[in-house]
Amino acid sequence: MTRPSNPVGVGDTAITGIDGAHGVLTYHGYRIEDVVAHRDYEAVAGLLLWGPRHDSPPDRDVASELRSRRSLPPTTEQVLDALPKDTPPIDGFRTVVSAMNDVARVYPPTVEESLDLIARSPTLVARLYHRSNGTRPVEPDRQLGHVANYLWMVEGILPTPERARALERYFILLADHGISASTFALRIVLSTRSDLASAVSAALGALKGPLHGGAPPEVLEMLDAVGSIDQVEPWIDRLLEERGRLFGFGHPIYRVEDPRATLLRKFAKEVAAPDRYALARRFEEVALERLALRRPDHRLFTNVDFYGAVLLEAVGLPRALFTPTFALARTAGWSAHALEQVAQNRLVRPPERYIGPPPRTWSDQA
Amino acid sequence: MTRPSNPVGVGDTAITGIDGAHGVLTYHGYRIEDVVAHRDYEAVAGLLLWGPRHDSPPDRDVASELRSRRSLPPTTEQVLDALPKDTPPIDGFRTVVSAMNDVARVYPPTVEESLDLIARSPTLVARLYHRSNGTRPVEPDRQLGHVANYLWMVEGILPTPERARALERYFILLADHGISASTFALRIVLSTRSDLASAVSAALGALKGPLHGGAPPEVLEMLDAVGSIDQVEPWIDRLLEERGRLFGFGHPIYRVEDPRATLLRKFAKEVAAPDRYALARRFEEVALERLALRRPDHRLFTNVDFYGAVLLEAVGLPRALFTPTFALARTAGWSAHALEQVAQNRLVRPPERYIGPPPRTWSDQA
Repeated sequence: MTRPSNPVGVGDTAITGIDGAHGVLTYHGYRIEDVVAHRDYEAVAGLLLWGPRHDSPPDRDVASELRSRRSLPPTTEQVLDALPKDTPPIDGFRTVVSAMNDVARVYPPTVEESLDLIARSPTLVARLYHRSNGTRPVEPDRQLGHVANYLWMVEGILPTPERARALERYFILLADHGISASTFALRIVLSTRSDLASAVSAALGALKGPLHGGAPPEVLEMLDAVGSIDQVEPWIDRLLEERGRLFGFGHPIYRVEDPRATLLRKFAKEVAAPDRYALARRFEEVALERLALRRPDHRLFTNVDFYGAVLLEAVGLPRALFTPTFALARTAGWSAHALEQVAQNRLVRPPERYIGPPPRTWSDQA
Repeated sequence: MTRPSNPVGVGDTAITGIDGAHGVLTYHGYRIEDVVAHRDYEAVAGLLLWGPRHDSPPDRDVASELRSRRSLPPTTEQVLDALPKDTPPIDGFRTVVSAMNDVARVYPPTVEESLDLIARSPTLVARLYHRSNGTRPVEPDRQLGHVANYLWMVEGILPTPERARALERYFILLADHGISASTFALRIVLSTRSDLASAVSAALGALKGPLHGGAPPEVLEMLDAVGSIDQVEPWIDRLLEERGRLFGFGHPIYRVEDPRATLLRKFAKEVAAPDRYALARRFEEVALERLALRRPDHRLFTNVDFYGAVLLEAVGLPRALFTPTFALARTAGWSAHALEQVAQNRLVRPPERYIGPPPRTWSDQA
């Protein structure tokens, strides 16, 4: 639904390749379809951080490194416990990451700091969730992989392999997507030689918005508001008449379907309740048809948020965790971009266009 | 010392006009020389927020509004008190502003939130300073203006009018400067329809870096390292030989002297100890001469950080507060840009250039 009105070039990136005209998305050259079929999130984090030749560096075992870094430092817990209890997890996440720079205070960010960030963030989000919910936090379980452990910490029950794998696929598909608004903010912060905690908290601030990571819960609000399949057509028509926003459709880059949307539709169907999936599918059909009628010249497609939301719901995550979960997936990409930005070492500052009045003196004032 | 390697256009702004070729800087059209001569910081905040026709809106008294909003909400104090005691004030500032979104959680930012931000931030920074220093916080004094009250809260003694006015001039000159890296980060965060607390904490993260708001303390470190006037030449020559960085020179926009640097040189001379000013002046002369010799094709000029640092030292602020003080001055500009970004309502996302390998399947892996 949004298009960048001022295309800008921030720099070069070799992490994620996006061919918007053909719907091809790659991590260091590997097609996303292939990555999600064959790798777990830990391996994808390694791929993003080290690049293809170093997917499994001989001297590092990413999975076990992440496993051993899950606990929160006491100073982090202290800040977390001081937040108002009703702090939404996404806001708490941003604030506590900002405070994490008691351990990551200086430029440049390192791989060690990145691994700490990726490993600790699920623990942090689960803690924030229990805090806002008034329930007891659950300690990380070292027997479980990165994503299964996150579900464990949120629910306190061992997730079935199907649910854990469904969520892991979401994590993999959302792990990076080039220089999105959040990643752009992160790179700008680092371009002044600030620190990783500052940069990631900036990224979290950008991701929060409903035009970015805030979209998935909005998708479910729409489905709930529709209620039943026979209400899909009148509901969408009414929304569009009232100039309301359809969440889950359109992307500034893709001119065909986002390959992640194609995959998420399939994965969501595997885990969602049949009624819920059918409602979503009907909603999608009608929405795409109506959008095409309204703007034949600018075709919109289902984006990653639509079936992403259906999948997260099917996995059993509460809605307050949808946006933080998107952010958790993206911690690997943010870390990779942080290290890439440092390697490029460029200050990002746009020469803006001034459109105000010409110079005048104070006495000119009306 | 830095030039943007990828000029990018983020959008239009009518707040600050920068004519880098002629060294003209304006706030809503008013020349900075004129603004700093005739207005206090509160009036400048009003000018930036409301524009020239609304410098003093008939229904709002900016000065008294700022005065009445200086206290921190209990939830903010709670987060502040939970930070590790050795948290540098600039880092604490970013984290506590992020937590402030218990009162500013939703899009769009409002004028009320902006006034709260501008008014509370000095209280917050002074509290963080006393916390890191192990000294007792000082309550705001409603008899004092915005800048004098900040000095009062830091020192616990009433500042002389000369010192308060010198610092106020610094606040006015640094109140806005177009879409700098920090303001760029702020606008990107808001472009996803996130909230003001997220956006300002992102800006604070960017400002922290030594290529942005982190430069002034580095300037004094240089002067201290030189020690005496007769050591200026050999010290600078050695630094340049060792490819070290001279802080306080060069700017990506100005091709003549930054008008703020011209003003700050004059203001610093008025308040600095004569010896210190003489050392700074000599340092500047030698640095400019050597830089011109090394790169005759790309002349560098003294920037705002150089005499800004000398002035802040003369006013008596501790170095740990230099970067936060820069940020305090900029809260007015950030607020104005937040409101302008909301009015433009555009998503900022750069189409990056991908420079990695072409798509391949997993089995291609080496």
